[in-house]
Amino acid sequence: VKMGSPTQRTAVTAAACSVLFFIVGILIGKFAGAPEPVPAWFRGMSTDGDSKLTETLMKEIRTDNIQSDLNSIRNFTMKPHIAGSPREEEELVTYVFNEFKKHLDSARIFSYKVLLSYPNATDPNYVAVQLENGTEVEVSAKVEKVLGQDQDDSTVVNPFNAYSRPGIVTGDLVYVNYGTIEDFLYMSRNLSMDLNGTIALARYGKIFRGDKVKHAAQFGCAGVILYSDPADYAVGGHWRVYPDDWWLPGSGVQRGSVLPVDGDPLTPFYPSIDSAYYLDQKEISVLSAIPVTPIGYDDAIRYLRLLAGPDVPSTWRGQLNVTYRHGPGFTAPHDNSKMKLYVQTYSEKRITKNVIGYIRGQYEPDRYVLIGNHRDAWVFGAVDPSSGTSAMMELARAFGNLLKEGWRPRRSIMFCNWGAEEHGLIGSTEWVEELIKTLGNRAVAYLNVDIAVEGNATLIAAATPNLYKLLCESAKKVENPNPEEVARGRKTVFDTWLANSPSHYDPALPQIDSIGSGSDYTAFLQIAGIPCTDIRYTYSQKAYKISSYPLYHSAYETFGLVSGLMDKGFKYHQAVARLWGVMAKTLADKVLLDLDCTQYASKLKDFPNNVQKKLKEDRNKKKTYQIVFYLLFSFLFGWCQSEQRTHQLLSEIQHHNPLEVRRLNDQLMEVERAFIDPLGIFGRPWYRHTIFAPSQHDAYGSSSFPGLTDALFDIENDKDQVKRWEAVKKEVSVAAFTIHSAAGVMKDVN
Amino acid sequence: VKMGSPTQRTAVTAAACSVLFFIVGILIGKFAGAPEPVPAWFRGMSTDGDSKLTETLMKEIRTDNIQSDLNSIRNFTMKPHIAGSPREEEELVTYVFNEFKKHLDSARIFSYKVLLSYPNATDPNYVAVQLENGTEVEVSAKVEKVLGQDQDDSTVVNPFNAYSRPGIVTGDLVYVNYGTIEDFLYMSRNLSMDLNGTIALARYGKIFRGDKVKHAAQFGCAGVILYSDPADYAVGGHWRVYPDDWWLPGSGVQRGSVLPVDGDPLTPFYPSIDSAYYLDQKEISVLSAIPVTPIGYDDAIRYLRLLAGPDVPSTWRGQLNVTYRHGPGFTAPHDNSKMKLYVQTYSEKRITKNVIGYIRGQYEPDRYVLIGNHRDAWVFGAVDPSSGTSAMMELARAFGNLLKEGWRPRRSIMFCNWGAEEHGLIGSTEWVEELIKTLGNRAVAYLNVDIAVEGNATLIAAATPNLYKLLCESAKKVENPNPEEVARGRKTVFDTWLANSPSHYDPALPQIDSIGSGSDYTAFLQIAGIPCTDIRYTYSQKAYKISSYPLYHSAYETFGLVSGLMDKGFKYHQAVARLWGVMAKTLADKVLLDLDCTQYASKLKDFPNNVQKKLKEDRNKKKTYQIVFYLLFSFLFGWCQSEQRTHQLLSEIQHHNPLEVRRLNDQLMEVERAFIDPLGIFGRPWYRHTIFAPSQHDAYGSSSFPGLTDALFDIENDKDQVKRWEAVKKEVSVAAFTIHSAAGVMKDVN
Repeated sequence: VKMGSPTQRTAVTAAACSVLFFIVGILIGKFAGAPEPVPAWFRGMSTDGDSKLTETLMKEIRTDNIQSDLNSIRNFTMKPHIAGSPREEEELVTYVFNEFKKHLDSARIFSYKVLLSYPNATDPNYVAVQLENGTEVEVSAKVEKVLGQDQDDSTVVNPFNAYSRPGIVTGDLVYVNYGTIEDFLYMSRNLSMDLNGTIALARYGKIFRGDKVKHAAQFGCAGVILYSDPADYAVGGHWRVYPDDWWLPGSGVQRGSVLPVDGDPLTPFYPSIDSAYYLDQKEISVLSAIPVTPIGYDDAIRYLRLLAGPDVPSTWRGQLNVTYRHGPGFTAPHDNSKMKLYVQTYSEKRITKNVIGYIRGQYEPDRYVLIGNHRDAWVFGAVDPSSGTSAMMELARAFGNLLKEGWRPRRSIMFCNWGAEEHGLIGSTEWVEELIKTLGNRAVAYLNVDIAVEGNATLIAAATPNLYKLLCESAKKVENPNPEEVARGRKTVFDTWLANSPSHYDPALPQIDSIGSGSDYTAFLQIAGIPCTDIRYTYSQKAYKISSYPLYHSAYETFGLVSGLMDKGFKYHQAVARLWGVMAKTLADKVLLDLDCTQYASKLKDFPNNVQKKLKEDRNKKKTYQIVFYLLFSFLFGWCQSEQRTHQLLSEIQHHNPLEVRRLNDQLMEVERAFIDPLGIFGRPWYRHTIFAPSQHDAYGSSSFPGLTDALFDIENDKDQVKRWEAVKKEVSVAAFTIHSAAGVMKDVN
Repeated sequence: VKMGSPTQRTAVTAAACSVLFFIVGILIGKFAGAPEPVPAWFRGMSTDGDSKLTETLMKEIRTDNIQSDLNSIRNFTMKPHIAGSPREEEELVTYVFNEFKKHLDSARIFSYKVLLSYPNATDPNYVAVQLENGTEVEVSAKVEKVLGQDQDDSTVVNPFNAYSRPGIVTGDLVYVNYGTIEDFLYMSRNLSMDLNGTIALARYGKIFRGDKVKHAAQFGCAGVILYSDPADYAVGGHWRVYPDDWWLPGSGVQRGSVLPVDGDPLTPFYPSIDSAYYLDQKEISVLSAIPVTPIGYDDAIRYLRLLAGPDVPSTWRGQLNVTYRHGPGFTAPHDNSKMKLYVQTYSEKRITKNVIGYIRGQYEPDRYVLIGNHRDAWVFGAVDPSSGTSAMMELARAFGNLLKEGWRPRRSIMFCNWGAEEHGLIGSTEWVEELIKTLGNRAVAYLNVDIAVEGNATLIAAATPNLYKLLCESAKKVENPNPEEVARGRKTVFDTWLANSPSHYDPALPQIDSIGSGSDYTAFLQIAGIPCTDIRYTYSQKAYKISSYPLYHSAYETFGLVSGLMDKGFKYHQAVARLWGVMAKTLADKVLLDLDCTQYASKLKDFPNNVQKKLKEDRNKKKTYQIVFYLLFSFLFGWCQSEQRTHQLLSEIQHHNPLEVRRLNDQLMEVERAFIDPLGIFGRPWYRHTIFAPSQHDAYGSSSFPGLTDALFDIENDKDQVKRWEAVKKEVSVAAFTIHSAAGVMKDVN
């Protein structure tokens, strides 16, 4: 074909022009007035983390690692590791530090010199019957018998109660049941017993042991002997005991601290760092006012048999084969004998260490998601706390693998391995005291596991209400470790949990306990106002009405117990680690924080509802109560409105606007902080959370509006009604102001 | 031309194709694989506000508005406006509220029911000489004589000291100079005078009047009479007095509060909102222990003339035409006469109100720049505070005009108009107590002006060190209101300021005072740890060695004084308003906060430097001091390193990454908060700033490390050296921990 034809020329020219203009057009289109491109990090900043990686994380958490020799419970439980010992503060600290360094971005050790307490190794504590001539008979066991053979028992610490005052005292024995305030009031009011100078024999259970000692001292006792009754530790004729079953044998003794405060008692409110000012040990009043030491029930029955006095009421009876009597003193031929208490427990300054492992957040490194567990144990600690420690080590490894695959969370994650929890939450408290200014501003939540597994019936949890939703949604993602439950159609941890204990105000939610004090979350919640959770897998609380698993704080909390009796195959440990990991990853990854303020309203309404109930019972008081509580109730109503508004805002927020997101997230964090009163709860300034501080008569308990609850306690029987109601009014005022503050932070401009 | 020719067809076809492909090309170029555009708000979020608008703002601030009838000093000074009066809490509150609503985004009134104090209107306070037969002679003036004619004097409140205990007492008169602790120690130690039951005549000046009364009560006096000596209020034979000059006439009396705490004394630590719990007025110990009332020097000279006892030393002499004697008691024939003090001052609960005006920030509405000034005055308050109030009203109007022109700051700006400052910083303190949870997290800075203009020599300022740089840079932008200074080449406010008082550690900086307590910034600094400034134009402090401008708190602080004598043309008012506005706008507009942490190091080093100086004087103490202070100094060194690192980070930061910017800004805000100890300064828990709380013996003063300064005060003369050094060690520990905390917040991950 000849190229010169007009048609061809037309076509060629047209094509050439077209190509030329096409290219020019593209270039113009691309560059002329083109918008600036969005930087890559900007997109990342506005996107939730990949939720598929949550599945990967869960797969990474393996049972064999939790139990294996290297990074597992086996390593932690091989030897005793009491706080302040070389095993605990050197070998295990180094191990944890190296593991964190290996798997995470970095790790750091925080050391504190603090007051710790020990029994005298060469002069053990004991109790005995002292005859009139001074001879001691029926001397209690000074060491806990060795049972099972799976560990190195050479450094087991003999039974003692930490921070007992040392002392040798004699007196008439009295049996004081659980040593609650009600028990002592019964003896003094109903039985008109004079307890001055007596030795109180109290069974473990129901309340914090330190409060038993406090009550005994208040009523004039000269000393306290604590023991574990089969009714609480070898229930219902279960005489198959450790090492054949999980029940406590008669030789087993529960150790434990009686310290009434948290953290180093020599440096209240400040951290025990190099520059610390230490109180003189002689000047502090936190050591127990009277000596105390614990014994097993093989010993206790010997003294109970001798007791004189009237029979106790049925609720006071334990399950030892003896007639429980009140005392005081012994029956013939021992009517002139006394009970003797020989306590050489001492306190001294030693170093305790926290190991912190870090994953640095990509977009908000200054927002911290903290997970924590303590490392120290009274003896082998296979349940308390090494079940939790192993779960955390595995979690660190699993998160480390995600990091290697390129994942990095939006926010920072910190793995906190605490020292000296058993002595009085000392490692975690000193750390929070040291870092209060950063944690107070930056911590999103603290997720605690102390004991990971103490049974295999169901999950239980305590939490601040803003984490209820996250807890439930996360538990729905974790597969049920119990095949029988799965066979019943309960596929997830959540299903069994809900079936076991539905909440009384929302049947779609499982019961979640109020969180107050008792493990390492305390300082986070009470000093800094940081949202907290505490989770564990537990035994059936319906089948066993006991205060703790039977071998708690005894020398029989061993690897054999856990691997042979409590969690063969470590599936329950795995489930807890998974739940823990899912919660941490969700909080660290999602653009909007998973802090849900709507649950607070339901929780806070509990208090007015209880007051209303009381009013129905006693119509005379109606007017007084209405006047006093009117404002609190109206503020609560205001709170509910703020909460609705915030909830609305959250649904309308522009996820892609990083400052808008940050602002709302900050407000959600501020809500919990708003409940902190820097002056503390009346009479207990170390607790600062006006909603969830522990109850006055049991540090393990938790009540809402503790100041108000304390002020109202037994108010009907007080002779000075005017003064008492003034105290109530003052507490109402504090509570109302707190609610007002918390409603305020939900606005962006005040 | 025929259209069918091949050439034409080629051209047409080519053109058509070209156009078609051109358009397609443009479209492809624009949309195929094009990057997502950056949203407009994203660009705004990363850009400093337009600095040209700062010029506009300054032009908007006009002298005629400041003095004009409508929104001006004239309106405020027309009638007396003491806190709690109808003029103050109704008319002026309504006026300010409406102005704020008109010019700003919104306005809100916060009301508090608080304890206020007044003289009895029908039964005025007085002092007199009481003869042996009970007759009163030489009775002092019960009302302040009317001078000048520019205002409505019908509601002038008679001279009194707020929160004096009421009482009628008689006793021997003693002259106690300024009533400082040193003055009283001189009388008791050097002169061995027994002051029990005496009436102290103290001249105003040097220290806070409340401390004079506290000292007198400590030394056993039964009452206090305060008076203004010409040496301090009509200096150097300047007997030309108001209304002809600015000096105090003999009829003038300084009013003022003697309350030793800040905020409503009935609700310490909590706001006086509806739900407040009020202490019983009878139970509080904050009312002065002994009655006190003020008089003028025309009255004072009558009592000084009668005084017996030895002549005073030269430093005690005032400038009245009398021989100053110590007392006690009068010379013949009055040697059996007594001084009588008749005080009917009372306290009662009344409403005080704060008016807050808001400009909502565009990108960070949850970050607040606060400017504040009080509204209440003892009488007409033309200087204190209405000079400042007028400046703020004009600033609100000027900012309002910027808003109308389309400007909107990155952060929120709040205009705070306080009530009941004169009584004891009550309005501002209650507000900070109410909003502590939001302000504590969100306030960037609080910029106070109390008196805007009390002279025309130079600017003076007090500030937290992180605002030194902003103060200086802003002052460089404001033109000098003094033409004589401009003629000397000092073109800006800064130039005159620097020339007047160069700083002792950096000659390029003017002297900026430490900020502690004394005006409405106190609660912001001491409760919440918010960076603060306080600025005013003042008289020459070299020419006049006086404690305040002469007519301070008298009935002669009138519009005539200001417009006729102190600031004809209102140029100095304008300059202060401009400086105030530039600082607020800069803090609100710039992406990176203008909080400079480097000045803290210089300031904090003052303390160790002083200790070192002391060591050179006394080599024996070297070892003790070294041991005690070693850690504090080493922590200070650590602080300096952190500060360098943060400074470096700030220079490297990516301005366009909003979360990185927010993170660093948050850290800069956290530094000041880190100095707050929730437990408060030892013995004075209402002051919480461990670096800048007021000195113990003068609430107007300010010392760094106040706890430590108090602990070291007069330590050489203490008999119990062990106990005193323990106290020092404890304060060193608190100071070191504070520095450690503040260094910690400069890291993003701890």
